[in-house]
Amino acid sequence: MEDVQKHQAEIAMPIDRVGVKGLKVPLVVRERDSGIQHTVAQVSLAVDLPAEFKGTHMSRFLEALEHWSGELDYHSFRTLLDDIVGRLQARNAHARFVFPYFLRRRSPVSGTVGVMDYTCRVDGLLENGKLTFTLGADVPVMTVCPCSKAISDEGAHSQRAEVRILTRYTGLLWLEDLIEIGEKAGSCPVYSLLKREDEKFVTETAFAHPTFVEDVVRAAADGLASHPQVTWYKVEVESFESIHNHSAFAVIESGK
Amino acid sequence: MEDVQKHQAEIAMPIDRVGVKGLKVPLVVRERDSGIQHTVAQVSLAVDLPAEFKGTHMSRFLEALEHWSGELDYHSFRTLLDDIVGRLQARNAHARFVFPYFLRRRSPVSGTVGVMDYTCRVDGLLENGKLTFTLGADVPVMTVCPCSKAISDEGAHSQRAEVRILTRYTGLLWLEDLIEIGEKAGSCPVYSLLKREDEKFVTETAFAHPTFVEDVVRAAADGLASHPQVTWYKVEVESFESIHNHSAFAVIESGK
Amino acid sequence: MEDVQKHQAEIAMPIDRVGVKGLKVPLVVRERDSGIQHTVAQVSLAVDLPAEFKGTHMSRFLEALEHWSGELDYHSFRTLLDDIVGRLQARNAHARFVFPYFLRRRSPVSGTVGVMDYTCRVDGLLENGKLTFTLGADVPVMTVCPCSKAISDEGAHSQRAEVRILTRYTGLLWLEDLIEIGEKAGSCPVYSLLKREDEKFVTETAFAHPTFVEDVVRAAADGLASHPQVTWYKVEVESFESIHNHSAFAVIESGK
Amino acid sequence: MEDVQKHQAEIAMPIDRVGVKGLKVPLVVRERDSGIQHTVAQVSLAVDLPAEFKGTHMSRFLEALEHWSGELDYHSFRTLLDDIVGRLQARNAHARFVFPYFLRRRSPVSGTVGVMDYTCRVDGLLENGKLTFTLGADVPVMTVCPCSKAISDEGAHSQRAEVRILTRYTGLLWLEDLIEIGEKAGSCPVYSLLKREDEKFVTETAFAHPTFVEDVVRAAADGLASHPQVTWYKVEVESFESIHNHSAFAVIESGK
Repeated sequence: MEDVQKHQAEIAMPIDRVGVKGLKVPLVVRERDSGIQHTVAQVSLAVDLPAEFKGTHMSRFLEALEHWSGELDYHSFRTLLDDIVGRLQARNAHARFVFPYFLRRRSPVSGTVGVMDYTCRVDGLLENGKLTFTLGADVPVMTVCPCSKAISDEGAHSQRAEVRILTRYTGLLWLEDLIEIGEKAGSCPVYSLLKREDEKFVTETAFAHPTFVEDVVRAAADGLASHPQVTWYKVEVESFESIHNHSAFAVIESGK
Repeated sequence: MEDVQKHQAEIAMPIDRVGVKGLKVPLVVRERDSGIQHTVAQVSLAVDLPAEFKGTHMSRFLEALEHWSGELDYHSFRTLLDDIVGRLQARNAHARFVFPYFLRRRSPVSGTVGVMDYTCRVDGLLENGKLTFTLGADVPVMTVCPCSKAISDEGAHSQRAEVRILTRYTGLLWLEDLIEIGEKAGSCPVYSLLKREDEKFVTETAFAHPTFVEDVVRAAADGLASHPQVTWYKVEVESFESIHNHSAFAVIESGK
Repeated sequence: MEDVQKHQAEIAMPIDRVGVKGLKVPLVVRERDSGIQHTVAQVSLAVDLPAEFKGTHMSRFLEALEHWSGELDYHSFRTLLDDIVGRLQARNAHARFVFPYFLRRRSPVSGTVGVMDYTCRVDGLLENGKLTFTLGADVPVMTVCPCSKAISDEGAHSQRAEVRILTRYTGLLWLEDLIEIGEKAGSCPVYSLLKREDEKFVTETAFAHPTFVEDVVRAAADGLASHPQVTWYKVEVESFESIHNHSAFAVIESGK
Repeated sequence: MEDVQKHQAEIAMPIDRVGVKGLKVPLVVRERDSGIQHTVAQVSLAVDLPAEFKGTHMSRFLEALEHWSGELDYHSFRTLLDDIVGRLQARNAHARFVFPYFLRRRSPVSGTVGVMDYTCRVDGLLENGKLTFTLGADVPVMTVCPCSKAISDEGAHSQRAEVRILTRYTGLLWLEDLIEIGEKAGSCPVYSLLKREDEKFVTETAFAHPTFVEDVVRAAADGLASHPQVTWYKVEVESFESIHNHSAFAVIESGK
């Protein structure tokens, strides 16, 4: 059967990235404490395409994924990218996995265990054999407004906020490391299961540490900037304001 | 050209509803104070289909919409449904418009004006000449947790919540009426623009009126149940908990 | 510490449903061929609340979930609902799990294996000891337009469509059963991995079986109506029309 | 009342961008043919923040928006950014409007008029008085697969695809210009209203011009690269494959 993809391109322009996205697959992720966990990922896979070829061979991305172990760690991720480069005869390959990552967390007073979910991402671009690897975690926290607290006779508005961290680094870093940096940056971490004594503690802790989105983004950026392994980072904090129908947000990139 | 839709159905089953959805159109909406406003609606239009016909004529929904005034009030909505029944030779017709509705609101102390948006819906089913009309509004509010307030030495967690009202009634009701009922049900309304003195007022007002989702759903249901024109309602309140990564919610239907 | 939830309600109205939603948890699902699979679910849990109590105890939903096996089958689901009724001293309990379900599918000619995902839902309402159980699957298919094919000198527009099945039944039914009914209803099933010979087969099969959304919804409804165990069903088909920027859709409920 | 925002920052780090997002507002947009249209925009507004200040004054973004004309063209957009820089005493300001833009389109044979919607974006960063302005449009098109057509005895799979264009340029460009470039790049434009003779024409036109996502992204990139005013562009094409449950995509940036 005819290989239309190999035909000459009508317009001889190189394509930066061509591939598949919106794939959903089961995924096993390696945990910091050497356990593993099962989750589900949204996947995007792509390569570059030289100016002369009409099309890439999309089914080979699926073959690479099918051939792959499905167990995500730094080495297996690199293996997948190498395999894609080989199968598609490309110079560059890009892969991204976005998935909920689960941690069993103890509530702060009663010690009751509940499962928390964090949207995480693993992103890698292999260019001429060199891998640029980006690890990310979206970490929900609670924020109490310092201004509202200072000016009000009673109370202060609080809300859920999300600390979205992206980072590049040398050596090994774990999603758990990013989640810890994110959680320390807000007024208080959030939990799935809180008994009454925990709710009292979380409320009082948060009110003792009021934070603007500006404070949160700086605290997370500072945590990343002072981390010896981190070479680049971007942090966005979005706070779902309880007194408005819109969000406040702040972004710091790279610690320039 | 062949009219394939008029062919006999392979499987002779009547279809409850067949039509188009995901349409986006500019819309003019009549306001309570006799002004008008421009907005954009997601539209769904449908009819029933008897067992004998293979298909309906989808392009006629678009013709009906094109022929329609684009100015939404009770009478024009009925006109659209009548037109659809006629064009598609159907017994029943259904139409739904979902759109942001805007109100210019004064902040409570400084009186500064800002624009608030409320997702609203107008839904109608015309069956054998009888119209069942449903009006809805999603109203954001602030909630302060009564439990957190009672047990904590300082503060109480608060968050944005959404009061989603659907209602049927006799005579005329306005989106503004539903929005007022929703806003009264929370700990405090939310605003787009708050100066410092307003933020102090909103915080203190909310802390003086702590509400669970259960309180909010009952207050809104009570407002609807005691309204002389309302014949049916459904209220859902969802609170985007600031101490959790999930929501609390409550639903009351119909005031049974 | 004060149990504010047990206070008397300010407005003495019973609440139909109160609980938590937007929870994300790892889930193990039993497969028809007696295997199991790991996935991730969005969870909603709720109970009714009598008129006299101010609030329900939200943390108990999380305790029930934490205490639960996390392995979803008919019996374990019933166990979860019974546990919720007990922990929250409610008359009714409702639970819903929505999750991607994965099947390894062979392509039709080359027999190459790829993973397909189907959004599925398990929904149960336990009322006074009686369980109303609803099983659902969203099944992507391909549709080729019969009208476009009949009137055009060459070709016919095709597109992805989704067959959304909800069903109640006696005895045991499996997600695989619903997926098969859905896939048979379109012009051709869709696959994640297709080699060239498979793509030829899928294209030709689909073009030999052109279907309107009306045909697809009737075929799926017919498959459910003629199934001896099915006691109720609802099917919606949405076709993401390739010649428009909107969808066509059709709904049949119950086989009345 | 205390101005907490003016306090010294705990961590003296400059913030790249801090502001509000998720705002929804009515918007008037100037059309190429010198008319205007009403639509609704999602808005994001931000500034930089020097290392020494704890927080920015969020309410001033809303004041700037309230003070602004609400009529979007190049000059008014610049005015808004200048006003934000002034009100917030910032060096940089960023604004983004994302909105559906409507065009009344004639179907290709019957000439019947229908309304099409295109998601558009206007994005500007004012840095030290210099404006970097980006205009974008997401253009839905139809694609027919060249491979499927070449290898199949009958037919070829087709689907909706989206051409997402972002561009920077000298002088004046219009959303209509970008939409035309996008629509020319696919197998055929899509329409909201097609009579039977139009559907025949669209089907046959599309089948006479089969395109991979690679062809579409190159055609759109070529249209932009050869435009005398365009100084930078990025095009992404996503095709919602009708034979798969995932998308194919391709990206070209900048015409390097």
